Amino acid sequence: MGLILYELAGANPALRFSPHCWKVRMALAHKGLKAEGLPWRFTEKQTIAFSGQGSVPVLIDDGETVYDSWAIALHLEQRYSSAPALFDGTGAIPLAQFVNAWADHVLLPAVARMILLDIHNCLDPVDRDYFRASREKRFGQSLEAVVADRPLNLSALDRLLAPLRQILNGRDYLSGAMPAYADYCVFGMFMWARCCSTAQLLSKDDPVFRWRERLLDAFDGLARSAPCSGVETKCP
Amino acid sequence: MGLILYELAGANPALRFSPHCWKVRMALAHKGLKAEGLPWRFTEKQTIAFSGQGSVPVLIDDGETVYDSWAIALHLEQRYSSAPALFDGTGAIPLAQFVNAWADHVLLPAVARMILLDIHNCLDPVDRDYFRASREKRFGQSLEAVVADRPLNLSALDRLLAPLRQILNGRDYLSGAMPAYADYCVFGMFMWARCCSTAQLLSKDDPVFRWRERLLDAFDGLARSAPCSGVETKCP
Repeated sequence: MGLILYELAGANPALRFSPHCWKVRMALAHKGLKAEGLPWRFTEKQTIAFSGQGSVPVLIDDGETVYDSWAIALHLEQRYSSAPALFDGTGAIPLAQFVNAWADHVLLPAVARMILLDIHNCLDPVDRDYFRASREKRFGQSLEAVVADRPLNLSALDRLLAPLRQILNGRDYLSGAMPAYADYCVFGMFMWARCCSTAQLLSKDDPVFRWRERLLDAFDGLARSAPCSGVETKCP
Repeated sequence: MGLILYELAGANPALRFSPHCWKVRMALAHKGLKAEGLPWRFTEKQTIAFSGQGSVPVLIDDGETVYDSWAIALHLEQRYSSAPALFDGTGAIPLAQFVNAWADHVLLPAVARMILLDIHNCLDPVDRDYFRASREKRFGQSLEAVVADRPLNLSALDRLLAPLRQILNGRDYLSGAMPAYADYCVFGMFMWARCCSTAQLLSKDDPVFRWRERLLDAFDGLARSAPCSGVETKCP
């Protein structure tokens, strides 16, 4: 019974770096739930074929299968309605979905331009050819070329963070005084980078940096203590 | 007493094109409120000096002065709390503010690259030198150069709309089944373009186009019937 979460893993099976899986990890912690996290690799499509599709996160909740991080968040909110809310009222759900779409469409590709080669190097050797071929097709460039101009890519990412920065200049969390699912949607992108790469995406005087610090500390440091960079040592 | 709204106007004083003033116009209509809209021009800083700053919208509500569209929306929500809500619960406010920041930081400059010269040409002659100098400084280019590559600028705008498009693919409004202030924050950018320019920003098969149509029709066609392009004829 209980909860099982299939999560993308690296060469080190303890390295769980998927931004979408991190959204779910934070959502589970927010709800006070514990799931058994099963490592999954890009090429293990058969392992999750029961879900009817080929991507993680896939959650099995007491026998019920739910995939797609957004659908999982809605599922958790409904099923565990007496636990702390992931959405501060139903009116926040559509707008949180916009934040999620912004994170996926805007932030994810910009962060990818900083860490794509690092992700490759964290992967289990069985996944590397698949990853290289699929991502080079998506970006129309070699992994090396995507990440070649770090200052340019960092500057582009910095500009894209402007709306987030404006909000976090005035409050502790995107969702208000307390973090909620919209925060985790964005935070997942930063955990992806943190787990795979030593790239510094934010400067310490950035409100976004301070927000990230708060979320690294949330839930007894769940995110801060997560394995990084394919080794079992902790990130600084 | 009643409500007075200082709004940016063009050579034709009936032309009210400011994206931020349109956010407030829609918010007032949502609340069922009518304001006397006073035309204001960029160079008439003295006229609104009483507000302690130099930009519109400025709302005078029964003697109280409120400036900045976001502050005005919060003011209306609080003062007219029994009228239809601009925010579907307090939990929606921080996330609506993120949408507003996205509209201002991302959408506004991209729309500007389509219409900046058209705006200039709608302005009262007294405003044109100010507008040209301040905007050319902001963009680091002549107005003509900013808008020169229309296909490129349109394509960039189209890409930036991806998160909005994803949400509007699944529902009628950004805020859910009914429009609310987050919708007006984004819609203001499209009204800015519609009032000043004949540029076509959206294709008819775009969910964003259909959403814009719905908002043009809202409140008995308030936005659809607004004067356009510096002439008193109605837009098609």
